[in-house]
Amino acid sequence: MISVLLVGEGNVGSHLYKAFLNADEITVTQISSRKLENIPQADVTIIAVSDDAIAEVSSKIKNDFVVHTSGSVSMNDLKNGSKKGVFYMLQTFSKDKKVDFSEIPFCLEAENANDYKTLEIVAKAIGKKIYPISSEQRNTLHVAAVFVNNFTNHLYKIGNDICKENEVPFEILQSLIKETASKIETLSPEKAQTGPAIRNDKKTIKNHLNLLDKNQQEIYKIFTKSIQNGDKL
Amino acid sequence: MISVLLVGEGNVGSHLYKAFLNADEITVTQISSRKLENIPQADVTIIAVSDDAIAEVSSKIKNDFVVHTSGSVSMNDLKNGSKKGVFYMLQTFSKDKKVDFSEIPFCLEAENANDYKTLEIVAKAIGKKIYPISSEQRNTLHVAAVFVNNFTNHLYKIGNDICKENEVPFEILQSLIKETASKIETLSPEKAQTGPAIRNDKKTIKNHLNLLDKNQQEIYKIFTKSIQNGDKL
Repeated sequence: MISVLLVGEGNVGSHLYKAFLNADEITVTQISSRKLENIPQADVTIIAVSDDAIAEVSSKIKNDFVVHTSGSVSMNDLKNGSKKGVFYMLQTFSKDKKVDFSEIPFCLEAENANDYKTLEIVAKAIGKKIYPISSEQRNTLHVAAVFVNNFTNHLYKIGNDICKENEVPFEILQSLIKETASKIETLSPEKAQTGPAIRNDKKTIKNHLNLLDKNQQEIYKIFTKSIQNGDKL
Repeated sequence: MISVLLVGEGNVGSHLYKAFLNADEITVTQISSRKLENIPQADVTIIAVSDDAIAEVSSKIKNDFVVHTSGSVSMNDLKNGSKKGVFYMLQTFSKDKKVDFSEIPFCLEAENANDYKTLEIVAKAIGKKIYPISSEQRNTLHVAAVFVNNFTNHLYKIGNDICKENEVPFEILQSLIKETASKIETLSPEKAQTGPAIRNDKKTIKNHLNLLDKNQQEIYKIFTKSIQNGDKL
């Protein structure tokens, strides 16, 4: 049996608390990050607060093993005097939406093998996909996530804008969007690439540019160039 | 009962043929586009051939009502002497992958209401999502699809490149990619936008740019600018 103390009552903290309550191997306690007096002892203390608050909150915790849940904060930014680690789940958490922890990748880091083992047991109690990820690798994942999540969503916005301007329902594209995301489970993105850019279909590219405004054209051109050159722009 | 003649034995033709065989309201015949002698009569003749071949193949068909299945060819590019229309399914078809027609949007166009009605009956016999879409609107959909499908896939490729360079398994991002695609079923892309650009988190943006090569930086910068300015670059 491993005891877990959760510090923080935001989205991540709340979803984790519910999940740990249902895990036989874990006893869990949750406290607010605003009342850090009489902090309970625990085998693992998980700080689930905003990035900016991690250093200060961790400096007030005397427990043996303290981890944070952030994708972009280094393990050594924890300011507890004892052992450190990271318990990062790569997913967006929304307050009202149920979380399927079996689908979420747990990216774990600790200063030594024993502590890593403990984090692994805690993660396996609620999840399935567990990865050892260093702070440097986590940085990499975070920037890659900006491309595949934030920037992809911006492409959806442009697609939506184009549809709105021409009075076509954007929902028609929904099934294609899901298919695009599913395809790369079985095919590398490089092999999954289709469209006028990779075919160098100049007639269609010219026709498309004529339909776009200046800003959309700029993005269309840079992608066409980037797709055609591999990664040499 | 409506009789359908399918001309073409590629991916689209083959998948449609199988689907129509199982539809009670439809009798279906399929012929190759290379042997256009003794063409059978039919209520609807669906030409499922490559874009470049549509004009020539259609010019050889004397049947009453002829439609093509292309996203980027105008209805009037059909060169049959009789009535014309379009039966476009917005999805990528792969030879070996089973097609779920109930998920695929059918974009229909015809010269008059009666013919449109016929196409609608044919589409409803195998599908569920039916839209009246003009040739101009189809052009719009096609360019929007380049953004949400081709360009999105290129962002996946860049994410994959970043992971490979830093020895992080790309599969860790798979669940986030699917979540990003699902999110916009219930939220507009504009409201679903998250990340350092929309928060104007300059410290993270600077940190990310330092991790990227020159080409990745160029795309990172143009997206950050575009996300921050709405659609005014």
